[in-house]
Formats: sequence, C-alpha cells, structure tokens
Amino acid sequence: MNDFEFYNPVRILFGKEQLEKLDELIPRNKKIMLLYGGGSIKRNGVYDGVKKYLAGRDIIEFSGIEPNPTYEKSMEAVELAKKEKVDFLLAAGGGSVIDATKFIAAAVPYKGGDPWDILEKEAEVEEALPLADILTLPATGTEMNMNSVVSRKSTNDKLAFKAPAVFPQFSVLLPEAAGSLPQRQVANGVVDAFVHVIEQYLTYPVNAPLQDRIAESILLTLIEEGPKVYADPADYDAMANLMWSATMALNGVIKAGVPEDWSVHGIGHELTVFHGIDHARTLAIVLPGMWHVLKEEKKEKLLQYGEKVWNITEGSDDERAEKAIEKTVEFFESLGIKTRFSDYNIPAETIDRVVKNFEKREWFETGDRKLVTLDVVRKVLEDRL
Amino acid sequence: MNDFEFYNPVRILFGKEQLEKLDELIPRNKKIMLLYGGGSIKRNGVYDGVKKYLAGRDIIEFSGIEPNPTYEKSMEAVELAKKEKVDFLLAAGGGSVIDATKFIAAAVPYKGGDPWDILEKEAEVEEALPLADILTLPATGTEMNMNSVVSRKSTNDKLAFKAPAVFPQFSVLLPEAAGSLPQRQVANGVVDAFVHVIEQYLTYPVNAPLQDRIAESILLTLIEEGPKVYADPADYDAMANLMWSATMALNGVIKAGVPEDWSVHGIGHELTVFHGIDHARTLAIVLPGMWHVLKEEKKEKLLQYGEKVWNITEGSDDERAEKAIEKTVEFFESLGIKTRFSDYNIPAETIDRVVKNFEKREWFETGDRKLVTLDVVRKVLEDRL
Repeated sequence: MNDFEFYNPVRILFGKEQLEKLDELIPRNKKIMLLYGGGSIKRNGVYDGVKKYLAGRDIIEFSGIEPNPTYEKSMEAVELAKKEKVDFLLAAGGGSVIDATKFIAAAVPYKGGDPWDILEKEAEVEEALPLADILTLPATGTEMNMNSVVSRKSTNDKLAFKAPAVFPQFSVLLPEAAGSLPQRQVANGVVDAFVHVIEQYLTYPVNAPLQDRIAESILLTLIEEGPKVYADPADYDAMANLMWSATMALNGVIKAGVPEDWSVHGIGHELTVFHGIDHARTLAIVLPGMWHVLKEEKKEKLLQYGEKVWNITEGSDDERAEKAIEKTVEFFESLGIKTRFSDYNIPAETIDRVVKNFEKREWFETGDRKLVTLDVVRKVLEDRL
Repeated sequence: MNDFEFYNPVRILFGKEQLEKLDELIPRNKKIMLLYGGGSIKRNGVYDGVKKYLAGRDIIEFSGIEPNPTYEKSMEAVELAKKEKVDFLLAAGGGSVIDATKFIAAAVPYKGGDPWDILEKEAEVEEALPLADILTLPATGTEMNMNSVVSRKSTNDKLAFKAPAVFPQFSVLLPEAAGSLPQRQVANGVVDAFVHVIEQYLTYPVNAPLQDRIAESILLTLIEEGPKVYADPADYDAMANLMWSATMALNGVIKAGVPEDWSVHGIGHELTVFHGIDHARTLAIVLPGMWHVLKEEKKEKLLQYGEKVWNITEGSDDERAEKAIEKTVEFFESLGIKTRFSDYNIPAETIDRVVKNFEKREWFETGDRKLVTLDVVRKVLEDRL
C-alpha cells in the first residue's frame, strides 16, 4: 500500500425527510444564495422544501446553471453574491450545480485577479464562502469531495480544481427527489460513477486488497442496481443504493493508498468541449479505447477486474482482458449509452483537435506511470471511430 | 437502506515517515500532554520521533495507561492536565491509550460534577480538549471515531461514551511501529476488528448491498492478511493492510444506513471486568454463543456471511449456518484465540454475575430488534462453558 493522507469533513444526511434539518444546519445569521439549474427542483419538491424549512431566512436565488457549468455563468453568480453580500451558498440539484457553486465559493473572496486562474493556473484557493448542497442526481460524487470541474465556452476549456476550502459543510442526499429523473440522466449517473471507480482502481497492483475489494464492491453494486434504476427511477431502494454508490465512488475512500489514473476523464472532457456530449457518455467512449491501447500495461488489474467483477476466469490473458472490455461495453450499451464516435456523429478530425488541446495544456504524459502520451491519446480515440 | 447521517472529520496520515508532519499539525502555541501506556513507544521509535519533531514545544508526559484503561488512572491525568493548563492531548499507542485520552479530553472541561457521569449517565459532552493520536496497534478503530470505552475498577464497570467533541483532530497510523508487537496483540487486533465488522453487518437485511459488500471486503481482508501478520508482525505490507482494515471497520462507513447490534461487546465487556480477559478474546468467546442462540433470528445474514465470506454454498440452511459459525471459530483459534470458558478457567458462576450486571444497568433488551433479553444473555454464555 502507498502512504496516504485522508481527510473528508463533509456531513452527509441521507434518505427521507432530511430537508427539515436545513434550519439547524445553516446558521441563522447567514445571507443565503440558493443556486440551481434548469428548474427540476421546482418539480421534485426540493424548492418548496427549502422555502418551507428556511422560511423567514434572508435568501436570494440564482438559477440557470447549465450541465457542464460554465465560467461565464458562474461569474454572474459571483457578481451577484458580492453585490448582495451573500455569505452562505446552498446548491440544489446535480453535480453541475454543485461544481459551479464550489467555483463561485472560491471566486467570491479570491484576491488574485481573474478567478479563472484557479482553474487554468492552479492558483491557490485560500478561502471560500461556506457552501452546502442538496443532491437530487446520483453521479459525480462532488457532494462529498473538494473537486470541481468548470468549462469556459469562449476558450473551449473544461478544467478541474480542488481545494479543502470547498468541501461542502453538509450534503443532503435525496433518493426520492432523484426518482423523477429522466432515464438518460440515470444512465449517465451509473456510468459516471462506474468510471470514477475505474480511474482509482484499474492502474497497477500495490498490494492494497481492501481498497481493491471496496472498489469492486462499488462496481458490482452499480452493475446490480444500475439497471433497476434505469428501468424505474422511482424505485426508491435501488435509487438509494445507486446514490450512495456514486458518493462512495469519489469521496476519497477507494483512492487512499493506491495509484490513480484520470486520463479517461482528461480525454473525455475534450469531447464534451467540442461536441457538447454528456460527460458520462464521453467516458463510455474513451474507456474501451484506453484499455485496448494500454492492455499490456494495465493487464494485471484488467484481469483482476474481469475475474472479480465479471467472473471471467477462462481463456488466455488476452482473451480474458478482451472479454472484460467487452462486458464493460455491453453494460454501458445496456443502459442506452453508446461507445463509438460514429454513434454520436463525431468526425475523425476531432482526434487532431483533442491532441492539440492536450498539447496546448502541455499534457504530454498523463495517466498512471505517465503512460498516456499524445500518441496514446491519438490511438485511444482512433480505436473508437 | 435506512436513513442515516455520516460525519467523520478525522484526518488520517498513514504509512512511513508521517511523524515529521507533527510539527505542522499541532499549533505552536499549545501546551501538549503526551499520553502513553507501558512504554512500548520507547522501544518502537515513536517516543523518539515525537521528541524530535516536536523539539522545543511545551510538552508534559503522562504514562502508565493500562489496557482496558481505567477511570481511576484517567482522573490522575485530568488533575495533572488542569494543574499544568494543558490544551492539547497527544496519545501514542493502541486503542486503550486513545480511549483514555478521549475520556480525559472530555473530563478536563466537564462542568457537571463527577466526569464518571459521562460514562454512567450519558451526561452530554459539550466540549473537550483538542486531541490527536499516533497509532501503533491495529485493533479498535478508535483512531477514526468518536467512541471511547473506560473501566472503573472500584465498581466492576466497563462503559462506553461517544461525543463529536472527542473525534481526534488527526491520527497518524504507523504500520512500521506495529511491527514490533507481540503475536498475542496482533491476534487480538485481528479478532477485535473482525467482530467490529460483524456487529454492524450480521443483523438482518435492509437492502443495502454496498454496505454489505464493504463489510464483507473487510472480513475477507482480515482473514487473508491476519494470518500473515500473526506469523510475522514485521511484514510491513500485511500489517498496513490489517491496520487500514481495522480503521475502516469502525469509522462509520459500514454502519451508514444499516442496523447495528453491539450485544457481543456488551457481554464481552463483563468478562473483562470479572476476569481481566483481553477484550478481543471475550468477543471470540461470546460471538459463537450469540449466533447459536439467535441462529433463527439472524439466519438471513448468517447464511449470506457464510456464502460471501467462507464460500459455504452446500447443505441445508441449518447446516450452512452451523458451518459458518464453525469456520469463524476455526479462524479465531488459528490465531491462538480460544473461544470457551474452560479455555480461560472461567467458572460457570460468572454467568450469574454477568446477568446481574446487565440487570443492574437495566439492559433488559439489547441488540438489534431488542432480541438480547437477560435470558438470551444467559443462554449465550451457557453455550460457551
């Protein structure tokens, strides 16, 4: 096992009738900004719940945060928060709203000039407004970590930052509210969480059997519960299991003491930037290519994954590895998530554009053991035409 | 899945060369009390490391904290801490030292009279001295939770309390320091962690597959790594895996959203009180009895445990349940931990004394679904003669 540090102070409130705790969770003297997206929280009861349990509080609203939230939209919230002297941010919705809220929390007190530097130049986030969230969509895990991903339309960038100051103070997880999600978003959530686990698991062995088993536990649960939720998002028990799996997938537990490799995400982000494809779908496109190209380098964990998650025990190493990739693709496709460029009408020229963006960011060697060179990025995408 | 709240702000520093971070972790202006036990930290390098990395700090020492730490000894530390105006407690050693330190942290600022009330009358702990620890013995999990167990010699009591104020600010986990432990303590640690998982897992199904799988993951890792560490405590990799398993066994992750049943601990504590038997050994004695007596009530999880952990898939329900109990006993015994009264020369009269203590505490119906009546306690122990 590698040495590690683990710290996660997010308070989780999970299940039914959790919104009524809002009143005691947010100090009375706070000026609150309620942030949300396209208005789904007005249909699933969360908006009314917030109004009810925070009645009499000083609250302003900021809505319209997009999927793949943008710097441009977030900066509108930053201006408003400064003008209105907001000192508590409450995000309600899915990962996009929470990610934007984390960036806004960091940007409001930011003293280094343009807050874009936090994303582009990894400028240090020394302080942030306190924030919390109400989660209605299981997927990204942002509700229990200090990470955020924000896009900038004007420059075709999709970048991440992390800072302890943007850990949510608390996150209210509501499987019931997620029950009204469209199938498409449920499928995205399952695949997003699945690939989050993979990026912290499918690298190379370091003798960390507990971390491996927990990662496999999340994968198995997603494979078991995902199709149930996809068939019926209102199945409370299955949605609850999916939601907790997605949170556990990215709260730091499974990465403690093991290597990580976020290169599937790195490449996937570019496909979203250029073609607006849902984040999870870009991961489903890129992952099989990454495994094909780095099959040899990732063989030990790929075979372990095949055996422990898909029960693949027969055939040569190569046959078993191929079978593991195949089963993964089948699983994604069973949730209506396609895995090839042609399925999304992505032209082959996109490959050049992605490689150029990697070059621009000087990402010459990403991934675990720096395996993902520009050449690997190209081959991974060529595999997915 | 049941509704739940999860909160655990303990910072974990795990692995080699972690002690050098002490200087930045403890504020410079603190008057520190270093608490330890019989002096093992002077042999495993931890004492010297603390002195080196906290050189120049205002530190006083308090040593001699016993296994099954006592109220009596802890109160000596409370007096000293008050007199010396200590404002930071640093425990170094195993679970006993950390548990005592938690009680001392709560007792120093306690304004309600005798701090024993915290244990006996569940008096509220509103504040506590900040505390942290350096763990050199994998077992209890106290390094990453807010629980503490303290005994009182004069009254034959062994009682627990919990309070958010006694979460350690940080815990430094040192597998290397644990490498010099005697086999006996390693075996105790494996069994202690094992039964911690069982108490949060082997109740009744609530459709929480991820929690179940993670619990099973810890059990499987203990079964795999435990014998390696028992054979050679200096096997760093195996010790690291044991240490992280023991921490994960009781940091709140596996109990989130599921029922618990701490009645094996409740009964085991009495055997320690009356006969001074190591905590883990009392659990190994009591657990098989609990399963024999409540085999029917716990059948679903007992069969699941047998299948997932011991791969028991053949035979009638009763045969498989019996086999699961048998395999567990064999595992304990393979670590040199005996499981019957006769192995420890415990007289049959102890059964009456335990039941009387349960009566005195008005513990008439403990365990999940209140299954553990005084009659069940008696039968459980009769099973272990």
